[in-house]
Amino acid sequence: MRPTLAAAGRGRILFGGDYNPEQWPEETWQDDVRLMKDARVNSVTLGVFSWSKLEPEPGAREFGWLDRLMDLMHEGGIGVVLATPTASPPPWMGRLHPDTLPRDADGRTEVWGGRQHFSHSSATYRRYAAAITEDLAARYGTHPALTMWHINNEYCTFDYGDEAAAAFRRWLREKYRTLDALNSAWGTAFWSQGYDTWDGILPPRHAHYLKNPAQVLDFRRFTSDMLLECFTAERDIVRRHTPHTPVTSNFMPLWIGQDAWRWAEQEDVVSVDLYPDPRDPLGGQRGALVQDLTRSQARGPWMLMEQAAGPVNWRGVNHPKSRGLNRLWSLQAVARGADAVCYFQWRQSRQGAEKFHSGMVSHAGEHGRTYQEVRQLGHELARIGSSVTGSQIVSDVAILHDWHSWWAGAHEGRLSAEVDLPEVLTAWHRALWEAHLATDFAHPEHDLSGYRLVVVPQLYLLTDAAVDNLLRYVHGGGTLVCGFLTGVADEDDRVRPGGMDARLRELFGIRTLHEWWPLEAGETVECEGFRGTLWSEEIEAEPGVARTVPYRGGELDGLPAVLHNGRAWYVSTLPEPEALRELLASVAEGAGVRPVLAGLPDGVEAVRRGELLFLLNHGREPVTVEVPGDHRELLGGEKVTGSLTLGRYGVAVLRS
Amino acid sequence: MRPTLAAAGRGRILFGGDYNPEQWPEETWQDDVRLMKDARVNSVTLGVFSWSKLEPEPGAREFGWLDRLMDLMHEGGIGVVLATPTASPPPWMGRLHPDTLPRDADGRTEVWGGRQHFSHSSATYRRYAAAITEDLAARYGTHPALTMWHINNEYCTFDYGDEAAAAFRRWLREKYRTLDALNSAWGTAFWSQGYDTWDGILPPRHAHYLKNPAQVLDFRRFTSDMLLECFTAERDIVRRHTPHTPVTSNFMPLWIGQDAWRWAEQEDVVSVDLYPDPRDPLGGQRGALVQDLTRSQARGPWMLMEQAAGPVNWRGVNHPKSRGLNRLWSLQAVARGADAVCYFQWRQSRQGAEKFHSGMVSHAGEHGRTYQEVRQLGHELARIGSSVTGSQIVSDVAILHDWHSWWAGAHEGRLSAEVDLPEVLTAWHRALWEAHLATDFAHPEHDLSGYRLVVVPQLYLLTDAAVDNLLRYVHGGGTLVCGFLTGVADEDDRVRPGGMDARLRELFGIRTLHEWWPLEAGETVECEGFRGTLWSEEIEAEPGVARTVPYRGGELDGLPAVLHNGRAWYVSTLPEPEALRELLASVAEGAGVRPVLAGLPDGVEAVRRGELLFLLNHGREPVTVEVPGDHRELLGGEKVTGSLTLGRYGVAVLRS
Amino acid sequence: MRPTLAAAGRGRILFGGDYNPEQWPEETWQDDVRLMKDARVNSVTLGVFSWSKLEPEPGAREFGWLDRLMDLMHEGGIGVVLATPTASPPPWMGRLHPDTLPRDADGRTEVWGGRQHFSHSSATYRRYAAAITEDLAARYGTHPALTMWHINNEYCTFDYGDEAAAAFRRWLREKYRTLDALNSAWGTAFWSQGYDTWDGILPPRHAHYLKNPAQVLDFRRFTSDMLLECFTAERDIVRRHTPHTPVTSNFMPLWIGQDAWRWAEQEDVVSVDLYPDPRDPLGGQRGALVQDLTRSQARGPWMLMEQAAGPVNWRGVNHPKSRGLNRLWSLQAVARGADAVCYFQWRQSRQGAEKFHSGMVSHAGEHGRTYQEVRQLGHELARIGSSVTGSQIVSDVAILHDWHSWWAGAHEGRLSAEVDLPEVLTAWHRALWEAHLATDFAHPEHDLSGYRLVVVPQLYLLTDAAVDNLLRYVHGGGTLVCGFLTGVADEDDRVRPGGMDARLRELFGIRTLHEWWPLEAGETVECEGFRGTLWSEEIEAEPGVARTVPYRGGELDGLPAVLHNGRAWYVSTLPEPEALRELLASVAEGAGVRPVLAGLPDGVEAVRRGELLFLLNHGREPVTVEVPGDHRELLGGEKVTGSLTLGRYGVAVLRS
Repeated sequence: MRPTLAAAGRGRILFGGDYNPEQWPEETWQDDVRLMKDARVNSVTLGVFSWSKLEPEPGAREFGWLDRLMDLMHEGGIGVVLATPTASPPPWMGRLHPDTLPRDADGRTEVWGGRQHFSHSSATYRRYAAAITEDLAARYGTHPALTMWHINNEYCTFDYGDEAAAAFRRWLREKYRTLDALNSAWGTAFWSQGYDTWDGILPPRHAHYLKNPAQVLDFRRFTSDMLLECFTAERDIVRRHTPHTPVTSNFMPLWIGQDAWRWAEQEDVVSVDLYPDPRDPLGGQRGALVQDLTRSQARGPWMLMEQAAGPVNWRGVNHPKSRGLNRLWSLQAVARGADAVCYFQWRQSRQGAEKFHSGMVSHAGEHGRTYQEVRQLGHELARIGSSVTGSQIVSDVAILHDWHSWWAGAHEGRLSAEVDLPEVLTAWHRALWEAHLATDFAHPEHDLSGYRLVVVPQLYLLTDAAVDNLLRYVHGGGTLVCGFLTGVADEDDRVRPGGMDARLRELFGIRTLHEWWPLEAGETVECEGFRGTLWSEEIEAEPGVARTVPYRGGELDGLPAVLHNGRAWYVSTLPEPEALRELLASVAEGAGVRPVLAGLPDGVEAVRRGELLFLLNHGREPVTVEVPGDHRELLGGEKVTGSLTLGRYGVAVLRS
Repeated sequence: MRPTLAAAGRGRILFGGDYNPEQWPEETWQDDVRLMKDARVNSVTLGVFSWSKLEPEPGAREFGWLDRLMDLMHEGGIGVVLATPTASPPPWMGRLHPDTLPRDADGRTEVWGGRQHFSHSSATYRRYAAAITEDLAARYGTHPALTMWHINNEYCTFDYGDEAAAAFRRWLREKYRTLDALNSAWGTAFWSQGYDTWDGILPPRHAHYLKNPAQVLDFRRFTSDMLLECFTAERDIVRRHTPHTPVTSNFMPLWIGQDAWRWAEQEDVVSVDLYPDPRDPLGGQRGALVQDLTRSQARGPWMLMEQAAGPVNWRGVNHPKSRGLNRLWSLQAVARGADAVCYFQWRQSRQGAEKFHSGMVSHAGEHGRTYQEVRQLGHELARIGSSVTGSQIVSDVAILHDWHSWWAGAHEGRLSAEVDLPEVLTAWHRALWEAHLATDFAHPEHDLSGYRLVVVPQLYLLTDAAVDNLLRYVHGGGTLVCGFLTGVADEDDRVRPGGMDARLRELFGIRTLHEWWPLEAGETVECEGFRGTLWSEEIEAEPGVARTVPYRGGELDGLPAVLHNGRAWYVSTLPEPEALRELLASVAEGAGVRPVLAGLPDGVEAVRRGELLFLLNHGREPVTVEVPGDHRELLGGEKVTGSLTLGRYGVAVLRS
Repeated sequence: MRPTLAAAGRGRILFGGDYNPEQWPEETWQDDVRLMKDARVNSVTLGVFSWSKLEPEPGAREFGWLDRLMDLMHEGGIGVVLATPTASPPPWMGRLHPDTLPRDADGRTEVWGGRQHFSHSSATYRRYAAAITEDLAARYGTHPALTMWHINNEYCTFDYGDEAAAAFRRWLREKYRTLDALNSAWGTAFWSQGYDTWDGILPPRHAHYLKNPAQVLDFRRFTSDMLLECFTAERDIVRRHTPHTPVTSNFMPLWIGQDAWRWAEQEDVVSVDLYPDPRDPLGGQRGALVQDLTRSQARGPWMLMEQAAGPVNWRGVNHPKSRGLNRLWSLQAVARGADAVCYFQWRQSRQGAEKFHSGMVSHAGEHGRTYQEVRQLGHELARIGSSVTGSQIVSDVAILHDWHSWWAGAHEGRLSAEVDLPEVLTAWHRALWEAHLATDFAHPEHDLSGYRLVVVPQLYLLTDAAVDNLLRYVHGGGTLVCGFLTGVADEDDRVRPGGMDARLRELFGIRTLHEWWPLEAGETVECEGFRGTLWSEEIEAEPGVARTVPYRGGELDGLPAVLHNGRAWYVSTLPEPEALRELLASVAEGAGVRPVLAGLPDGVEAVRRGELLFLLNHGREPVTVEVPGDHRELLGGEKVTGSLTLGRYGVAVLRS
């Protein structure tokens, strides 16, 4: 039994963030502790980018400064999530060992001076990473401040260089065993790509024209696996020293590079970084999606490892958070299962590439609005921690998502560059979120029998096992709604005869899928009662089997836009937001799924977590919410009877 | 006397497409033959991308599978266009011989994993290509299924690498003989580029700022010539074995990389690939342009080597063909001189980079609409084949086009990036097409005396011989209409004094061309009676010589927009479509050129080929067309008297 | 005492341009002289790109052609600005010495075939450059035609290659002495970038993610310094030979690559190239900005080294100059302090990359409108030369600008990519220009005590000395207006506590700068009485100290948009043009600054230079201007009493 987030939280919501004191004189450290206590910070992450400080030259070790900090944190009652510093090797590494540097598809080497300039496949890099990890674990494994291990940071590098090429070939040999199997899976009969030796295989480097999609897909799988090997190698070292201390590495939100389902299984704590655009009117929903996904990967409480107290600095225009927004989105994460609310970073840097990325203590300092709001939030989280930590969220609905399908479907040779999976996923999640339906995410091969409704926004690639699983689910009484471009390809990205798996076609009542009709950006297609976007299809339904909502006008006039055959629904376009919400709400109702709370005003989100009901107002105007029965509001302590008013960005946490 | 397309067609319209059976199990081959027969397919192209199958390791030969296919085709009564597989070398070639890989201007190598990753200048590549061609020709030269040779595929590679650089220097020495001649032609006195040795010359690789335009122009000429050398080397091998079998290589439509006039002279059959966007309302006209150009290059019947039965997969959004569109555009090609209507490809691939490019048999299979329409078309082509093949199209109008002029005019340092020759060419062709004027294309040095009207949309570069030719044409009684930016530069891309050849200026009655006034994207300029786009000019006419239509308002108020001096017209802007059509229709009428048919409704195209009159409705609404006299309609067999109605995308083929 | 522009001009306005006769046969040279005399050309620049002509192979010297030209010019009474040809090395240099070629951040080498393909750090290049400079100076130093030296041309190259890397390290050692100092200045504690050896430091080459901003900043400083070293090395050679001949090198207008303040101190004559877009309605103001900046750098008369008589050829669409515009903009330069009005180039090239860049003699030749207008201008300049040359312009207003601040503020990790310093600078200058306020530019550490009003559009980086200087200025009675993002960072690009220098905040009455609120492109923010663009800020003013104009509505409702505390103003947004003009006009009036002339119509510019009043009509419609008193108009010679009318693009030069 592996330790969980509870081991670090011990009944409290972890609150704090990345702390990079090496950027500051030691006198600032004292001030940091004072302010951390003032803000009820109980957890900091140390050492994420400290490698050149810890190992200023090859093999050297400078732990003194970290010793002092660990002690300082402990004295201040602040737990430490200790990071391995392996996301950013010191300059000497690239200089002495150019083999540690990654190369992109165009052959450009990524040098030091930024971060993450390491090759996942470099034996030299891995050797140095293991050594520093070993020494950190040995030195701090028993330190009383240590609460968790944080491995690396946002694993996200690709490498097309020679050592990666060799590793790719090894990975392929392991997967395919024979060249015949590889040639078959990659369809190398097309365009004369048959391999006669393993040595002939390269990463998908710069080519004259479209690259082999299966090669690209396997290279993505390989990359995710190599990065995972880097993670597990370090994880195993710290586990050996501290078997009872949980280990994590932070995901980027809905990031394409890692098969996060597989990764999550290798972590004790699933953590994620979350940076919705404060100016995005749907930022709250985009956050909810990542929160639902992360919670589902964690199968329980999860850790919000990084968010921003104000602006980030990597968008074209970087907006701060309006008054109250940081609190709203933080409590939303708690509502959706987070037992840790942390930031990048504690104190905004004065130097370096992210000096305009906000901190909990911004450039404005402790009198700045940003810190003042952080402080208020810290106190509130402390107030509700014991009531909320460890509790679960129950959903009757699951959205299916799979990285391999995303990867395959994103090939440059696809039918429409306008189809972007994250946007499709977001559109479907939004429909459920606005319908106030509690939603998990699941992998297409997961057991789905616990759900009343399963929604597939788009699973272009479905393994045979996944198809089996969907059929089993529907035959077992479940309700299934699938979006377009689902079931098109098999595990090797081989298009299934008919353009969609035959059993799925039968399930939906599709006789023939004649042609795909993608739409231009901004174009819509008329359907009976609504308009579709992005895509449409020329489908011939099985007469007498499927019931349909037809397209109206245009080339597809009268053909089915939406089909259903009993509990299996197929939606061959992307209905505009309101239409998709109504469709899913109606199907959900038919499947016996009820919204979290009836009669909610627009923009108010309701989440039940354990015995608590969270109400969150994403609008800037006060709204009144009907809440039948008597409740106690935990943040403010008031009694609530029948209804309550939420101010701008207001949140209530109700207990019956 | 070289063999022609008739040798392969023998009175039939060739119908079929690329066939890549190596992607399929042999049991599928039987099914292919069944469906081919069902669809009246009589020609397939084998082996286009089969190199790694034929030569799985260096020097190996695996012909067995191809033997079986050749026999199978022959048994099925299907002729084989046999391709040399040299467009996509096997992976082992790049691995063992990196010198065969091309390098782009930025120094990036194009590796295997796509296609066309061969250097046209690589001696190693050429040696391997010759060897496999030799063996294919020896083995299949006498096979009864063989009807034609197809060399390589869509030659289109550039190479800026070292072996290409050496070849470029050899090509330049051959052309210029002395460095003085080169320095003079390249204008190297500008920017201190004088060469003191041939060794100092490079391809136009990445530079700090604008590259030498004459160097870039010669590099384009060199590239076209090198690719042509690759073609003729293979052609000569197969000709040696099969002197009576015609040889072709497929052009891409209006592609910038090959001087197709020169290439066509080296081919027995001129073939082209044609992929108008099914969503483009002018797709039919864009197709007609390529068809007219290809027919003119072929000087008779030509081969539509590739088209798509449905969508392609290389646009941003790839649309299928609406019901009837494939038939319409195929019969349009026949109307405009094609004696072969073929597709890429027979059966849509399930794997590889083009699995979303349609096939004659799409993913939906034989019950899919796509195949059903292909099948109908096959039967119709069989019905009209004997009436149409071999017959000619007579045009009184020629449009002049020249690749060297296109190349020179496309330099990055030109006055307006908005001026794109294909769009200018298309605008002028469209005007003639909409005016129902049968049009050939010609090279500016061709004999033009057979035409009543010659139209020059834009020939930025004109050799002295071409200027002579134009003058001779007008002095011989011809009518000439020239668009802007014509006659600006000489053969070396040297601007002619006055900004336009002096004899041309005299011809048009231009005293001084003061300044070019390019327009911004979307901007228009008022002229008397119409609006111009893209370009305008500050011209002073020879008083008393030229008659003019003036600009109105703005800086050019009162200056001539259109000049003519007898039968020589100069148009210094691009009139909006309707205005250009009216202008050309009126000039044509004055030159004694009559439309194919008078009184045609909008969107209906009429073409006379031999004794037949093709009527094609490019619209989705039925139209009635007046056709004086009695005719027999060959597709349906009905008698037509005085008029007929064409349905959506309808086609009639009338014989008096 | 160094020689000045007056040494070359001797009471005349220099008029002429780059002359590249090596592109033309010698018979054309005679014609050139004839036309030059006809147009009153008195100065040509020879040899700018003649290296391969002068040194056709390594070490060779071919001076004969240049001897003839120098003599020819002298005989024609035309002075020669002789250029070192070092901006474009001959092809043999890159071939024999690849170390002379620069490499970009992506590792691509810039080869010959364009221009400026030299590495500023290459010892080989510098050796060759010194040798040819030495020989030119020795040969022509005593030639009577020689009036000035022109070193290189538009220095603008970057180099990320290995020799540049070594030079960068030397430069850094010189600057920082210790690695500790460098690590501190670069903030290498962030992202583990601590350097343990000087050898580990690279130029900011391609990295995985955001680069270290201080490294990028220092690399910009280094680049400017290396280029300056190239300049001073050649300058010192020619000075040794000709101590009384002034030396210049031409700037590009407001170009980011050179610290032009520092460069100007090293030049005898400050010269600039100026190419406003003829279609830009604000082209006149953009020109005025560069003219004001150049005059301020020159601290007196300056040289317009290059402008275009017609179109350039490096924009997307390149427009010619309307009739009169060349004259207007040329006389504007004279009004704003130019004692030289020159062009690139004399005769438009027929070949090479710039053959569509206009010349004084265009492709249309001497009868073309372009030459005719040039000729008229030459006569007019000759008429007014003695009245204007050497005279000064007095301004009560200074705009502060600093390249280091620009460099630091342009980092990819900044808060808004919409904030582009040249546009901000232009907006503020435009406000002053439209308010008819004579304006200098100054460096933030210059003595400002002579100005009544100092305007800081944006100085993101301010050294401590610069802050001292601003405070001293205000405390000494000056009026200061600062735009947003001023005083954010110190000399090392370290963000100052509070997000703005504390003393500046105190000066303006800012208690806390809570957050920056950048705006999206096109977005506006309401303020009391006007609308702001680009940026806004969440500021808490010191109560009772600052007087403010508030934001209205939105998140910042009621917070100060504009603050002032006595004579120190802070503007936290970019007011729309009219509002900014009114604000500055009102502040200026309060500071006792008067417009050049009261009651000017829109679009009319008035400039006093010495005793002359220039009136320039930037509009295409005639306007009448009230000019109290009696004047003589020098261009036409008429007497002006009380008022005068300026035609389209009309100019009057009045003397009381």
